[in-house]
Amino acid sequence: MDATALWQRYQDWLYFHEGLGLYLDISRMRFADDFVERMKPKFEKAFKDVAALEAGAIANPDENRMVGHYWLRNPDLSPSPEIKAEIVDTLASIKEFVAKIHAGEIRPPQATKFTDLLSVGIGGSALGPQFVAEALGPEPAPLKIHFIDNTDPAGMDRVLNRLKDRLNSTLVLVTSKSGGTPETRNGMLEVKQFYEKHGLNFGQHAVAVTMPGSKMDGIAKSEGWLATFPMQDWVGGRTSELSSVGLLPAALQGIDIQAMLDGAKEMDEATRVPDLRNNPAALLALCWYYAGNGKGEKDMVMLPYKDSLLLFSRYLQQLVMESLGKETDLDGNKVYQGIAVYGNKGSTDQHAYVQQLREGVPNFFVTFIEVLGDRQGDSIEVEPGATSGDFLSGLLQGTRQALYENQRDSITVTVPQVTPRIVGALIALYERAVSLYASLVNINAYHQPGVEAGKKAAASVLELQRQIVATLKATGQPLSLAELADKIGASDQVETVYLIVRHLSANSRGITLAGDLGKPSSLTVSGR
Amino acid sequence: MDATALWQRYQDWLYFHEGLGLYLDISRMRFADDFVERMKPKFEKAFKDVAALEAGAIANPDENRMVGHYWLRNPDLSPSPEIKAEIVDTLASIKEFVAKIHAGEIRPPQATKFTDLLSVGIGGSALGPQFVAEALGPEPAPLKIHFIDNTDPAGMDRVLNRLKDRLNSTLVLVTSKSGGTPETRNGMLEVKQFYEKHGLNFGQHAVAVTMPGSKMDGIAKSEGWLATFPMQDWVGGRTSELSSVGLLPAALQGIDIQAMLDGAKEMDEATRVPDLRNNPAALLALCWYYAGNGKGEKDMVMLPYKDSLLLFSRYLQQLVMESLGKETDLDGNKVYQGIAVYGNKGSTDQHAYVQQLREGVPNFFVTFIEVLGDRQGDSIEVEPGATSGDFLSGLLQGTRQALYENQRDSITVTVPQVTPRIVGALIALYERAVSLYASLVNINAYHQPGVEAGKKAAASVLELQRQIVATLKATGQPLSLAELADKIGASDQVETVYLIVRHLSANSRGITLAGDLGKPSSLTVSGR
Repeated sequence: MDATALWQRYQDWLYFHEGLGLYLDISRMRFADDFVERMKPKFEKAFKDVAALEAGAIANPDENRMVGHYWLRNPDLSPSPEIKAEIVDTLASIKEFVAKIHAGEIRPPQATKFTDLLSVGIGGSALGPQFVAEALGPEPAPLKIHFIDNTDPAGMDRVLNRLKDRLNSTLVLVTSKSGGTPETRNGMLEVKQFYEKHGLNFGQHAVAVTMPGSKMDGIAKSEGWLATFPMQDWVGGRTSELSSVGLLPAALQGIDIQAMLDGAKEMDEATRVPDLRNNPAALLALCWYYAGNGKGEKDMVMLPYKDSLLLFSRYLQQLVMESLGKETDLDGNKVYQGIAVYGNKGSTDQHAYVQQLREGVPNFFVTFIEVLGDRQGDSIEVEPGATSGDFLSGLLQGTRQALYENQRDSITVTVPQVTPRIVGALIALYERAVSLYASLVNINAYHQPGVEAGKKAAASVLELQRQIVATLKATGQPLSLAELADKIGASDQVETVYLIVRHLSANSRGITLAGDLGKPSSLTVSGR
Repeated sequence: MDATALWQRYQDWLYFHEGLGLYLDISRMRFADDFVERMKPKFEKAFKDVAALEAGAIANPDENRMVGHYWLRNPDLSPSPEIKAEIVDTLASIKEFVAKIHAGEIRPPQATKFTDLLSVGIGGSALGPQFVAEALGPEPAPLKIHFIDNTDPAGMDRVLNRLKDRLNSTLVLVTSKSGGTPETRNGMLEVKQFYEKHGLNFGQHAVAVTMPGSKMDGIAKSEGWLATFPMQDWVGGRTSELSSVGLLPAALQGIDIQAMLDGAKEMDEATRVPDLRNNPAALLALCWYYAGNGKGEKDMVMLPYKDSLLLFSRYLQQLVMESLGKETDLDGNKVYQGIAVYGNKGSTDQHAYVQQLREGVPNFFVTFIEVLGDRQGDSIEVEPGATSGDFLSGLLQGTRQALYENQRDSITVTVPQVTPRIVGALIALYERAVSLYASLVNINAYHQPGVEAGKKAAASVLELQRQIVATLKATGQPLSLAELADKIGASDQVETVYLIVRHLSANSRGITLAGDLGKPSSLTVSGR
């Protein structure tokens, strides 16, 4: 397509949201008009599906759950007065609690104010807060945020050691919807022990976000934590950034959460329009479908040209891949759906892997995110007439062009600035695009059945470990791996037994391995 | 395959490096013996190719360059006494400089010691130092490191504002091989201006790593910077972590760089063995070839179960994708090679996208990295008999098992701890695997021709911008986009003109847009 035709295509497909100042350009996705025509009936169904979901239909049939993240931004849409009240009250209580923390009215026993916030959570309870902290966290912030988002002992030690000197003014926020996520429970226990070791009362520094009645809720109550905020059953982890899960830590950092909600609400309205060409989320879903042939055949490479948006791709990995990565469709057919997402930021990634994007395996499409405002205040010229921001902008245009020349497709989302309102809008845009795409490919975007298998297998590894330790203690003599497996009735799991004892023996747990480490069959294992 | 056969396969293929305590398990890659047989001749050639490269052959024919990162760890292998002396002398001068900085013998004019290190660099000059800082940086460190790795004005402002109060004790390290990378040049100029605004002499805080005789070298000399360290022509950006590029910032942070070099040297020796089964890099390359059919058909998902290895995947994105992502092979055939790499860390990513890995599009293989040692010191029990580290280990085993059950392949690399020696070894392992794989698929791993196109396009965007600004100033009346494009002799580039003026108008640069922002054809542009 020549430059003039391309410019016409650009204008024909350009989407602009005046209120938000947000543009969406899909001219560099090379779909033809008849593709759009063919997709129209699918979109008609998709618009109906999301309308039903917003009205309170059971959108997640296996878990018999409604999906209500849209109500969070516009409580008037709630399907019942009880839900509306729950949303309004929770938001009010977050604002009130945060105001008291900032004013020092709620304060730690041994300091005049809380200075730091330690968030303990994983998955949906960490990715949104991390993305938002990086994108919007002011410096200095009223509370500086830190994260424990794993069950890695060395990782926890690093964060806790960093906080050691300010522990008495650190507020700990434990976020777990079910209250039973082991990584979060472990993090909470390790943090608690660290507080106690330093002579501090953990409960007087702790806050929970969890479902009312959960295990975590019980712990918080019995230990007299400072506060507990509800996470609702109808909010999924990966769409929880605009629930208490995301709003509480954002507000504590001094981020304008009402603006985030307002931006999301404006975007929700725009993406509710049942007209493909005038609905930016539908246009995104159309592009995803086109790129991957409705089967995820192309990876989604996210390239925001703005340092503060670095974690957007990691946030979207969960939102997109956990929602869309499904084995079966709603009719029970095996479909192996999904779209892989990766990326960091431009122009930095141009110096990492754009070589492959331009010349190598054509297994992806790019989404550029352009931010029009370069910085607060004026810029110096780094060359006559050019600023650092002009280079950033030029490099984005140049890369988009160079990719297109080599038949690599791209989408460009342009926003005026990275503000709470825009971040709220971006989250809402992608949430809706995922909902619509899920309908196009006929899958349930709101469950995650595949996560269970790994958890169950992990639990059985830990159970095996207990038996191994007990048996070795009782036996008192070295055993080969096969003998040990036999003794615990797991003769078909010698490998797992080996992997367990190898890990235990590396951690002064009273288990010793003797023999040639490179030849597992030569090894004997003994307990203390 | 039943559990017993699988355990046999595990043992048959297990690679163990006794000196490093490193294991490689490829039993969960489901290749058959005849595949290995078929690959043997290719590996014989690959072993010869890397031997020639190490001996100083021109491994990068288009740029007529040798590729010598292996000599850095064992200068005795250098192809000439001059090169050997260069390596030995550079290392000695880094150690000497760092000792003087740590002792306060080299100090800033207005403080007794340097406390912080600001690294300005991009691509190979940032990814290795960032990975190593996250993996090995002690806390507290003698110098705390910060990065400017982009030409994003807001991003630079954020880092500089963070350093504002310690600017007089901050050492600035500018790394640019050619000395002409615009992002790095821009960062350097912005940092310099910030120093001057604060009444500080930039040169007395600045150090360069660059090729002798480069533009940056000239600036450093003329401005009297504290020191300049050479980057050699025969070290590529993506294999520069164990050159002055990576060693200087690591040493300044108090990381044992000799141990990093020693670990890499040990691994280099192990990966020089011309025997597939006893060469861990060859085994990795075999797996990559098997997974992607020698064409990169599967993405490489990196899952280190250790927080400190979070940035390994980002480091590998450059090493793997920039090396392997090539349009043509060495015979000039169009091959569109490459392997896409992404990932963050386990078990965190289990709560993000392992749902898709287990059930969705089977377009990937996983590399688990297991670290046997959980932490320094003892652990509490989070459940009877189980520590946080046991959970981490169990979750890794469980996920590996759950993926295998669903025919998703994985490799597991196991290391005893995350130490400088092990990190050096991991870098060397992947460098060699990339070299070998490049030979298997017959491509040049040491150039990056595809990066040029984007750079050239960006330069022409900036040139167009200069003409636009000059024309608007001279004209003094509003022009439509088409008129403006005509006036600068770029009537086929209306879209680029539009994108440029949209960016300028958002940044108080004296350019105003009038009309309906959603309809570019309605817009008029005027200068001040």
